[in-house]
Amino acid sequence: MRAWHFAERPEGEPTLDSFDLREVDRPTPRFGELLVRVRYLSVDPYMRGRMRAGESYAEPWAVGDPLEGGVVGEVVESEHDGYEVGDLVAGRGTWSEYSVLDADDATPVDPDVAALPAYLGVLGMPGRTAYFGLLDVGDPRPGDTVVVSGAAGAVGSTVGQIAKLNGCRVVGFAGTDEKTAWLADGLGFDAAINYKATDDYRTALDDAAPGGVDVYFDNVGGPITDAVFTKLNVDARVAVCGQIAHYNDERVPTGPRTLPLLIASRAKVEGLLVSDYATRFDAAREQLETWVASGELDHRETVVDGLENAPDAFLGLFSGDNVGKQVVRVAE
Amino acid sequence: MRAWHFAERPEGEPTLDSFDLREVDRPTPRFGELLVRVRYLSVDPYMRGRMRAGESYAEPWAVGDPLEGGVVGEVVESEHDGYEVGDLVAGRGTWSEYSVLDADDATPVDPDVAALPAYLGVLGMPGRTAYFGLLDVGDPRPGDTVVVSGAAGAVGSTVGQIAKLNGCRVVGFAGTDEKTAWLADGLGFDAAINYKATDDYRTALDDAAPGGVDVYFDNVGGPITDAVFTKLNVDARVAVCGQIAHYNDERVPTGPRTLPLLIASRAKVEGLLVSDYATRFDAAREQLETWVASGELDHRETVVDGLENAPDAFLGLFSGDNVGKQVVRVAE
Repeated sequence: MRAWHFAERPEGEPTLDSFDLREVDRPTPRFGELLVRVRYLSVDPYMRGRMRAGESYAEPWAVGDPLEGGVVGEVVESEHDGYEVGDLVAGRGTWSEYSVLDADDATPVDPDVAALPAYLGVLGMPGRTAYFGLLDVGDPRPGDTVVVSGAAGAVGSTVGQIAKLNGCRVVGFAGTDEKTAWLADGLGFDAAINYKATDDYRTALDDAAPGGVDVYFDNVGGPITDAVFTKLNVDARVAVCGQIAHYNDERVPTGPRTLPLLIASRAKVEGLLVSDYATRFDAAREQLETWVASGELDHRETVVDGLENAPDAFLGLFSGDNVGKQVVRVAE
Repeated sequence: MRAWHFAERPEGEPTLDSFDLREVDRPTPRFGELLVRVRYLSVDPYMRGRMRAGESYAEPWAVGDPLEGGVVGEVVESEHDGYEVGDLVAGRGTWSEYSVLDADDATPVDPDVAALPAYLGVLGMPGRTAYFGLLDVGDPRPGDTVVVSGAAGAVGSTVGQIAKLNGCRVVGFAGTDEKTAWLADGLGFDAAINYKATDDYRTALDDAAPGGVDVYFDNVGGPITDAVFTKLNVDARVAVCGQIAHYNDERVPTGPRTLPLLIASRAKVEGLLVSDYATRFDAAREQLETWVASGELDHRETVVDGLENAPDAFLGLFSGDNVGKQVVRVAE
């Protein structure tokens, strides 16, 4: 089978040179594992961190390692009582045509709730990240103004909709008119700002969030975040989920200092990793599936066809090619 | 009587030009107020913020206004049942020989617990700031490593000792060998770093806090804070109490971005203002007085003599002239 491997550590913006597609033997599942024919594969911004040698929250990939990521597919061999051949599952696998999953870590996929790619987005890790990041860290209250950066991504689009379900005013930053139209017209955001159409984000926020910002869910960092910090209300909460603007920086990025602003606002800024909420994943999935099934929670996936194009799909995350969740179709 | 007034807004580092000593009539207390002969007057870094025209958490002084601040003194006229002539009180007054205090906002002073200047420091606003900032925002647990910047100041020296009382390892940053000696030998800090004797704060922290930082109580900002942020442990708490390194900045200061660091550490960074804890001030004062009376909580005051020297005492805060609380002796 074909499987992508990590060829070399990138400096700055990654290129195709970091990826190597090899022919390898199909793996054999051990006790408690499943062999899955991969239908869809997830590429995510956090993977850039795994390309670095230094320690981070995610274990770095060693050069030569198979690339890992979320997959959804069909069980072709089962070494676990809970799954049978033919079952559809999602879990942590590899960028390859077949992948071995830890059955205890895998989750069943119900195609009646949503098509398979959604299990890598709104019903997968990004959806859970949005759920816990917004509700636990952001702690939104009815009437709050919630601002989301990277709002048209898999996490951001879910955050904004959950905030609307909680009675908040929601403002999103995204990078194309197509994306802001989706947020405002499709998802019910109260305002959506195309950050590539202006560089005066503070004035844009004065219009979109005239009462200031109570919750900021940050996927991006950089100048958008700098502007939002100047608009934080007293006791505001900032959930730091991602900083994609800085993932390719080779030096520590600099910018306006934010701590002086926090004293007057008494704002709370907190980083989050979804893995910290693992004991509550089942409850989150149940709620998210309910919302998706009822149509209260909309979602999009951007699909790139063919395992051979997975690196391009990953690289496109850094130029904002995706609307909603970026996935790769490996097989029908 | 003599009273200091605000003469002009400073740009950058304040000078004596901002201060004007005038002869004015002694004020008359109204119902619910006390006229106090001021014995000691407090000068505090936050007052720099009141010198700015822009909105902040503290109301800006208008040019020509009397300067306000904490005072301790003796009641000479009482328009409140709870106080008699001759009582010693602390409260919010003015930089002047006599001052009118709101009796409901004033607190009794017991010279058997501590000498009068302590009621402007460890038993006053700075002590309460340390108490709530460390215990509520910092949330220290036994065995935690707590780092304090501005550690030899009124707030910092109290923070470090309360952290020790809570079973923590405590590391302080201060700017002279005299100060670090007081922290390490007098107050029982586990380590004290003279930040003027090195500019490699990260290496200094590797030695002083080899297990990383669980709680950072920041009074200062700037390069010390930048270094501490690189050492935050998972689930660390940062209490942003002051940013004296930036109070005289006329432009938004820049520095290394800290948000990318917060994702891996899931650290929580929160600004604090002691006024948010007003409903619990009595409990804090009782606890702080108990610790001071028993000798568990040590304190120092740096006394400048004479109301005429109050501006110099204030300006000295920005060059670190004070050990412990900076006060001005107005009368014996």
